[in-house]
Amino acid sequence: MSIDRTAALSELRAAVGNALSTDPTELDAARSDKSGHRSAAAPLAIVHATSIADVQSTLRIASAHRLPVVPRGAGTGLAGGAMAGGDRLVLSTARMTRIHEIDTVDQVAVVEPGVVVADLDAAARREGLFYAPDPASRAWATIGGTIATGAGGLMCVKYGVTREAVLGVDVVLADGTLMRLGHRTVKGVTGLDLVGLMVGSEGTLGVVVGATVRLLPVPLGSTVTIGAELPSVVAAGTAAAAIMASGVRPAALEIIDPLALRRIHTYLGLPAPAESTTHLLVQTDGPQALADADAALAHIRAAGGTGETSTDDASAERLLTIRRSFHAAMEAHGTVLIEDVAVPRRRLPDMFAAIERISREYGVEIPTVAHAGDGNLHPNFVYVGDTVPPEVWQAAHAVFREALTLGGTLTGEHGVGVLKKMHLREELGEPQLALQRRIKAAFDPLGIMNPDAVF
Amino acid sequence: MSIDRTAALSELRAAVGNALSTDPTELDAARSDKSGHRSAAAPLAIVHATSIADVQSTLRIASAHRLPVVPRGAGTGLAGGAMAGGDRLVLSTARMTRIHEIDTVDQVAVVEPGVVVADLDAAARREGLFYAPDPASRAWATIGGTIATGAGGLMCVKYGVTREAVLGVDVVLADGTLMRLGHRTVKGVTGLDLVGLMVGSEGTLGVVVGATVRLLPVPLGSTVTIGAELPSVVAAGTAAAAIMASGVRPAALEIIDPLALRRIHTYLGLPAPAESTTHLLVQTDGPQALADADAALAHIRAAGGTGETSTDDASAERLLTIRRSFHAAMEAHGTVLIEDVAVPRRRLPDMFAAIERISREYGVEIPTVAHAGDGNLHPNFVYVGDTVPPEVWQAAHAVFREALTLGGTLTGEHGVGVLKKMHLREELGEPQLALQRRIKAAFDPLGIMNPDAVF
Repeated sequence: MSIDRTAALSELRAAVGNALSTDPTELDAARSDKSGHRSAAAPLAIVHATSIADVQSTLRIASAHRLPVVPRGAGTGLAGGAMAGGDRLVLSTARMTRIHEIDTVDQVAVVEPGVVVADLDAAARREGLFYAPDPASRAWATIGGTIATGAGGLMCVKYGVTREAVLGVDVVLADGTLMRLGHRTVKGVTGLDLVGLMVGSEGTLGVVVGATVRLLPVPLGSTVTIGAELPSVVAAGTAAAAIMASGVRPAALEIIDPLALRRIHTYLGLPAPAESTTHLLVQTDGPQALADADAALAHIRAAGGTGETSTDDASAERLLTIRRSFHAAMEAHGTVLIEDVAVPRRRLPDMFAAIERISREYGVEIPTVAHAGDGNLHPNFVYVGDTVPPEVWQAAHAVFREALTLGGTLTGEHGVGVLKKMHLREELGEPQLALQRRIKAAFDPLGIMNPDAVF
Repeated sequence: MSIDRTAALSELRAAVGNALSTDPTELDAARSDKSGHRSAAAPLAIVHATSIADVQSTLRIASAHRLPVVPRGAGTGLAGGAMAGGDRLVLSTARMTRIHEIDTVDQVAVVEPGVVVADLDAAARREGLFYAPDPASRAWATIGGTIATGAGGLMCVKYGVTREAVLGVDVVLADGTLMRLGHRTVKGVTGLDLVGLMVGSEGTLGVVVGATVRLLPVPLGSTVTIGAELPSVVAAGTAAAAIMASGVRPAALEIIDPLALRRIHTYLGLPAPAESTTHLLVQTDGPQALADADAALAHIRAAGGTGETSTDDASAERLLTIRRSFHAAMEAHGTVLIEDVAVPRRRLPDMFAAIERISREYGVEIPTVAHAGDGNLHPNFVYVGDTVPPEVWQAAHAVFREALTLGGTLTGEHGVGVLKKMHLREELGEPQLALQRRIKAAFDPLGIMNPDAVF
């Protein structure tokens, strides 16, 4: 059945009124996310939902017209999962921004999906709690979007990934049915765990319209930050693996490779580092913070590195700024394709060595940062123009295959989106991919939910 | 199509040889678990798999003959999920007991499903790590069974539930297909999270034949234990909620209500406690253990309680023995029906008050223990004989409805099994139950996997 766009838009207008927009500027913005890519054509329209009822009626009408729907939050994704193409209806929950509740006894927050991650965290901290998942985009990314992608961040290494922070989600399915999944309790095993299934489902199963998330008590004691210099990426990877194996649980453990470090220094106007100098950032917190930092420093020195611990906020902020300037520094050189492989921690030095080899082999520069405590690397490919050059795709593919060979995965925290779906079969295998498609069909039998992404 | 039992058994014999048993004693044992219930008739046969190939060929033959399969570990479940009835084939993985690997750098273990939880923990502790989920049955329960049920325990409050400990599972589906789900890495969001879906699926989706689980570093410093006496369950619930809200993260926080406490004291030959005395057990660990225990004690005293901290192993063991003797003390009085509701922490005093009210209303004694830090209560109904008396079912139903009213759930950690499936629709609602059934069908289109449980 072909789509009757005029009828669909007219029904949507009747149902949601001014929440429906066909403003060309808005439609153009919805063609891209932060991956640096754009869809081939602008979507049909965008609904800025402000209520669950808006989401339900939008999806009912979309179902009736078989209109493909692309759910969208702040558009800060890195895998193209919220990039809307031609004949797609964008369903944005970015304007559903209420924090319903922060409960200090249950240590949970109940929020609408458009709440910005950093805003939730700030609200929790006013009550002595915090929201642990901290993707680099936390100042803009929405809770709904980070649940949809399973977004990670620096502090996952100690405080867990998004999947662990989400206790319950309210979801509207393609046919408009509202489902309240999960519990306000930490424990709960009634039936299948559909909350976990929603986290990271990238808009292919339904639209997140509410969430109950776990908050943690702000750790007591000081935070200690180490900015260390290692003679090579492999040395830094070795130090990181040794720190984790020692039983220290750092709150952040980040590696910046030599090429990325040089570009960040240039971007920030800092003096150029030596040729193969690699940056290792360690942050420890809690009552053991100082002892943990000393132990980390011993492993850094054993790997040939130098570094100092600092406990004052200004020094910590200066060190974190180096790490946080990574994306901006890369974008200053062109369009960026960001990979997101994760490997077992002991394989981190091997993965860095492989990236160096692939860089030489394909003649492509691959500045890389890593959440080293999680074995999660972000090799970046920077090129000029809108189209990814073939040698970049080839090098990216080689990086991905190497991660699989080392027992790792295609994506640690960004998701598959549209940019990585070509690799999905290779990681999952045909039988699992077929099973995943059957599960998607159990939620979305018409296949209208984000049909360009993942599957 | 009716089942050709003779042909099925003959094919199974040819495929798995002596792993197939029709020994009446073994078949009788497979009729029950630790719930105190028994199936109406003995199963057809039991396969004691010792390899993934055994599991695959068993399931292929079962599929060909439409023979219902009940996966089983050690049979320590409390909801009847592994109780096999007439014409069922039991597929046990209890003899798949190899620990393939304990990796101190990646901090993971790779195990077969029949490994006993306590054995894995002991092996990990020899390397300075531990396996956090600690169900009361840990000395017998298998990893495969605890993954299937999503089993919890005392330490979940600080160190997380089974879902958080499982990074990867290898699963054989009803048609014999082996799927390797998840990753060795903590981060990983490639496709839908099928690992989380398997945890707590109670054998309805497939059979767990291997697992990669997360190990944690053994906490530094001493362990401090508090055995406190409170004047009432409501006071104990108030103290527990206050301790959690204070930001202290106890490793265990357990309430034993007055009736349960009296029975445990009788069972252990201890002097009888006063009429409404309620026991609160707190354990703290890590570098902050002493300060945390002091803070907990202040909250206990504010709620009208008395207690002492102890740091020696003998005192701690004596206090833990009181809690661990709960089940045995109840079983000394008759057959036990164990409920497993979880409520938001701030509702704990309300739930205890409701249990007291329901006990009076139905004239049924309901000794109760609670993992108070998680809001997870185990109200026990003790009766004589094999059949649950109607007033016990009514009281149990009233307890469950109250938990739902308070924003809680039917089962925190035991699962639905066969004993609680009558309540499933009430918690999930018809649309979600229908969705869960469609997901089950995506894994098991013939419906042969544990068909008496959950759905």
